Amino acid sequence: MTRHDYPATGAWFPGMPVGGRKFAHFPEDRPFALDGGKVLSNVSIAYETWGTLNADASNAILICHAWTGDSHVTGAAEEGHPTPGWWEGVVGPGKAIDTNTWFVVCSNVIGGCQGSTGPATAHPEDGQLYASRFPVITIRDMVRAQVRLTDMLGIRKWHSVVGGSMGGMQVLEWAVTFPDRVKTIVPIATCAQATAQQIAWGAIGRRAIRLDPKWRNGEYYDAAIGEGPWEGLAIARMISQVTFRSDNVFTERFGRALVDMDVDYNGLGLWDRFEVEGYLDHHGDRLIRRFDTNSYLIIGKAMDLHDIARGRGTLDNALSRIKAPTLVLGISSDILYPTYQQKQIHSMLSDKGVDSTYVEIDSPHGHDAFLINFDQVGAPIKAFLERTF
Amino acid sequence: MTRHDYPATGAWFPGMPVGGRKFAHFPEDRPFALDGGKVLSNVSIAYETWGTLNADASNAILICHAWTGDSHVTGAAEEGHPTPGWWEGVVGPGKAIDTNTWFVVCSNVIGGCQGSTGPATAHPEDGQLYASRFPVITIRDMVRAQVRLTDMLGIRKWHSVVGGSMGGMQVLEWAVTFPDRVKTIVPIATCAQATAQQIAWGAIGRRAIRLDPKWRNGEYYDAAIGEGPWEGLAIARMISQVTFRSDNVFTERFGRALVDMDVDYNGLGLWDRFEVEGYLDHHGDRLIRRFDTNSYLIIGKAMDLHDIARGRGTLDNALSRIKAPTLVLGISSDILYPTYQQKQIHSMLSDKGVDSTYVEIDSPHGHDAFLINFDQVGAPIKAFLERTF
Repeated sequence: MTRHDYPATGAWFPGMPVGGRKFAHFPEDRPFALDGGKVLSNVSIAYETWGTLNADASNAILICHAWTGDSHVTGAAEEGHPTPGWWEGVVGPGKAIDTNTWFVVCSNVIGGCQGSTGPATAHPEDGQLYASRFPVITIRDMVRAQVRLTDMLGIRKWHSVVGGSMGGMQVLEWAVTFPDRVKTIVPIATCAQATAQQIAWGAIGRRAIRLDPKWRNGEYYDAAIGEGPWEGLAIARMISQVTFRSDNVFTERFGRALVDMDVDYNGLGLWDRFEVEGYLDHHGDRLIRRFDTNSYLIIGKAMDLHDIARGRGTLDNALSRIKAPTLVLGISSDILYPTYQQKQIHSMLSDKGVDSTYVEIDSPHGHDAFLINFDQVGAPIKAFLERTF
Repeated sequence: MTRHDYPATGAWFPGMPVGGRKFAHFPEDRPFALDGGKVLSNVSIAYETWGTLNADASNAILICHAWTGDSHVTGAAEEGHPTPGWWEGVVGPGKAIDTNTWFVVCSNVIGGCQGSTGPATAHPEDGQLYASRFPVITIRDMVRAQVRLTDMLGIRKWHSVVGGSMGGMQVLEWAVTFPDRVKTIVPIATCAQATAQQIAWGAIGRRAIRLDPKWRNGEYYDAAIGEGPWEGLAIARMISQVTFRSDNVFTERFGRALVDMDVDYNGLGLWDRFEVEGYLDHHGDRLIRRFDTNSYLIIGKAMDLHDIARGRGTLDNALSRIKAPTLVLGISSDILYPTYQQKQIHSMLSDKGVDSTYVEIDSPHGHDAFLINFDQVGAPIKAFLERTF
């Protein structure tokens, strides 16, 4: 496989185009303590904003991105952001989350690779990249880093915190850990606690990356162009890509079509590919070009560790801390975060007297529908934000 | 990872204990032509039998095994078979498929590694193992090899051909390709054509094996003990293991329990494992000890190529060839071969006037339920066999 045009790491680093990014640098004298007991110094968080914060800072909305997302929620492709925003259809002037009304913020998670401190960042003590030294983080750590950014932006309380998948995990941790700082929340296609099956998928992807000799225990940043652990990352991504979609959509789109092969199977080889394999390759390749493998590992582990009940006794105890009016969105065909998980959040909150609404997106697209069916996602969010403003 | 006690290949080879196996050697002057255009010479098929064939050979039942199965359907562990039969609860004296009544046969598929000709067999031309030279095979090839065995056993017509998962694919090919040689069929938790999602899972597993440097493009048979491509095979197996089970059973069994870790996450590492990861490791390890990686690849590819309509115009045309009374079993929680696939087979056959019955096994265990819920699987089979005898 020739992948000579790939970047060495897939991570943003100082000197690359900044695009619309801004950076919040945590003060040197305020190290950042992690759930796992480690401490990070000189943390930076990359973020973008749209719209204007009003005088009493009451129109601020925080959007939390998913596993391989970044701060570029909306806006055209630009230097430093090779593709348009990942929620372009939901956020922008005149869109469901209208940036003429709302001041919208999204930050790259800590541990990420699109501007925030992560494995591809230089360790302040020796100037060498963290690489395998970067500690395990949790969803709560991501949220605590966002709290510092929130303080620096002069925002006391978000009108809403909104996010899907891993973004939804952050949304729930915001409401449970910092109930006084969120007025409303919108968790989408997410769960209160990672399930054993979700953890299993994560673990298999990690093993595939570890098996790649080019991963070199995470110390691959000096690799020549195209010599990074791309194959391991591509396999991990393929696993996600199947769980992000649905059986029916795959069948409709690909059926059983073969590539480069006549129907009598003459001369058929073990590595001749079906159309669906080409599709998976394409998605693996795309990720490789823009994402750092060590960040993929660190963020994936954080998702597997996700449990809003951790240290809070029971799930019921944890959810009892949520007071914010809540809009929960689920997706009918989601096989990775099945709707029973969102319905559980909604019904437990309702039972506690929280103003909670559950809306199911009727889509064949599986988990990824929140990034595809913009109309169905946008409409209930728009109504919910207006009702609660 | 120390795996010093693993066999070099996981494949049975001459000189290892035979156990209850017999061998059908195809005559040297009758080479075996494959769907893919290649020809195999000196083919051997390993098989086992239970019960007694009656005078008019009308009580014979063929059982077809799944991906990593073998001929040892029933019977105690013995030399050459380290575990009891894989369908011990369904087949045996007094069981649903009663070996006091029926003459039961099961053969290891061609391409397999438990006695039949496969990648770990010596090529007759040079005496070196086939390894990567072993050609791609199809489910139809497996069935054609079974037809030769059938002839050698003096059986004109099977009273029934029975099998689950890949075994069910063979069952369908038997009924479509050789309608005069099956009186009835019992396809279980299977499909008429592999779907794009099923193919995707297969392809990802193949990529993981190829990524293992110890696979060495399939030429690993001279590896020292423990130096085979076990990690790649284990990852491929983990993928299967998740799709073979269900979200609910995983949650009930493992929840979110961690291994070797206290609840405050202090000192948490990237490779600290959850309970479910230990379970997946265990299953990967078990497979490694008994299964050859090249066979895993070859058989997996055959499943991905499965399509009873291939060369027959349409699925409707293909199913029109089936005349045999049919019992189709599906499993309520099967995420890999969802019940819509078995219902489709049943309804298309019924529409054509075939005596078809669909029974759904109500189990939380997912695809593997046909290897677990013996009572629910056995009862309808027993009734069906008696009704059609």
